[in-house]
Amino acid sequence: MPKHPDPSRRSERSRQAILAAARELVSEVGYAKVSIEAIAARAGVGKQTIYRWWRSRGAVVFDAFLALSEVDEGGGMALPDTGDIEADLKLVMRATVAEFADPAFEGPIRALNTEIISDPDLAAQYRERLAAPLDEAKKARLRSAQRAGQIAAGTDLDLALELLYAPLFQRWLHRSGPLTPEYADALVDLFLKAVRPA
Amino acid sequence: MPKHPDPSRRSERSRQAILAAARELVSEVGYAKVSIEAIAARAGVGKQTIYRWWRSRGAVVFDAFLALSEVDEGGGMALPDTGDIEADLKLVMRATVAEFADPAFEGPIRALNTEIISDPDLAAQYRERLAAPLDEAKKARLRSAQRAGQIAAGTDLDLALELLYAPLFQRWLHRSGPLTPEYADALVDLFLKAVRPA
Repeated sequence: MPKHPDPSRRSERSRQAILAAARELVSEVGYAKVSIEAIAARAGVGKQTIYRWWRSRGAVVFDAFLALSEVDEGGGMALPDTGDIEADLKLVMRATVAEFADPAFEGPIRALNTEIISDPDLAAQYRERLAAPLDEAKKARLRSAQRAGQIAAGTDLDLALELLYAPLFQRWLHRSGPLTPEYADALVDLFLKAVRPA
Repeated sequence: MPKHPDPSRRSERSRQAILAAARELVSEVGYAKVSIEAIAARAGVGKQTIYRWWRSRGAVVFDAFLALSEVDEGGGMALPDTGDIEADLKLVMRATVAEFADPAFEGPIRALNTEIISDPDLAAQYRERLAAPLDEAKKARLRSAQRAGQIAAGTDLDLALELLYAPLFQRWLHRSGPLTPEYADALVDLFLKAVRPA
C-alpha cells in the first residue's frame, strides 16, 4: 500500500480506537444496547473497518475486554514461575487487587459483570473467551507447584482457583472490604494452607 | 378492630403481597425503576398501607429480599451447632447450593446483584441489612468451632467466610460450574483444610 507512509501503524490506531469505543459504550449503555454502528461512530471509522477484523458485535466487545486483561507487553498470559509458589502468587494477587482497585479497569469490568449476570449467552462467551484462557494459565502455574511438591498432588485445581480468586472478586463486586496488598497476602496464605501437601 | 373477624391475618396477607410485589418488580424492571406506586398497584393495596410498615422504597425492597433469605419458620438466623463443624457446614452449604440452584430464589437474587454492582449506595444497604446479619450468624458458628478446637484460634473469620461462600457465589453468578451436593462437600473440605489448627 504505497499510498500510506505507514499503514500498519494507522491500522493499529484504528483497531485501538475501536476497542476503546467498545469498552466505553458497554460501560455507558450496557452490552444489550451497543451496536456496531455506535462503535464505528465513536471510533471514527466505517462499519466495514470493524467487519474487516471482527465478525460480530460480541467478538469486538470481547476483544476489547480481553485487551484489558492481557499481561503487559505482549508477554502472553503465563504467570511468573520463580519456583516459589508463595512469592509468585503474592506478586500476582497484589497486582490483581491493584487492578480491581483501579477506576480505569474496574468501571468497564463492573459493566461487563452486570451484563453477564443477566445474560446466560454472554456468560458462556465470557467463560470461553476470557475466563477459560486465564484459568488455564493459572492452573499451569499451580501444576508446576504440584510438581515441586508445594501443592498437594490430588488437589482439584478448578476448585482451588475459585478459592483463590472468588473472595477477591466478591469483595470487589459487593464493595464489602478494602482491597489492599495485605489482603492479597492474607488470601494467598489461607489459600496455600488449604492446598499444601499434608 | 371488631369489624374484621381476623385483622391480623388480613394484615399479614397484605404484608406478604407487598413483599412479593417488590421482589417481582425488582426482577422485572430493576431496582432503579421500582416505585412505591407500582408495588402498591401490584399488591392490590393503597400506598398508605405500605407507608404504615415501611418508611421508604429501599426499606420494603430489602425486607422483601430479607424474607427470602431468612431461615424457615421464624427460627432466626442461627446456623446448626451439633458440635461437629464439618457435618454442620456440609448441611448448611448443601442447603445454600440448593437454594442458589432454585429458580424461584435465584431470579430475584440475580436481579438484586445486578443492581448492587452498579449502585454503591444499594451495595452499602445490602451489606448492612442483608449480608452483615447473616455473616454474624455464620461467624458465631465458626467461633463455636474455634472454642471446640476445630478451627485455628488466630483465623481471620471475615476472610474465612469469604473463602467459604465466595467460590459458590462466583460459580453461581458466572454460571461457571455445576451446583451440586458434591460441590458443597468439596468446598467445605477445602475450607476446613485452610482453617483447621496446625
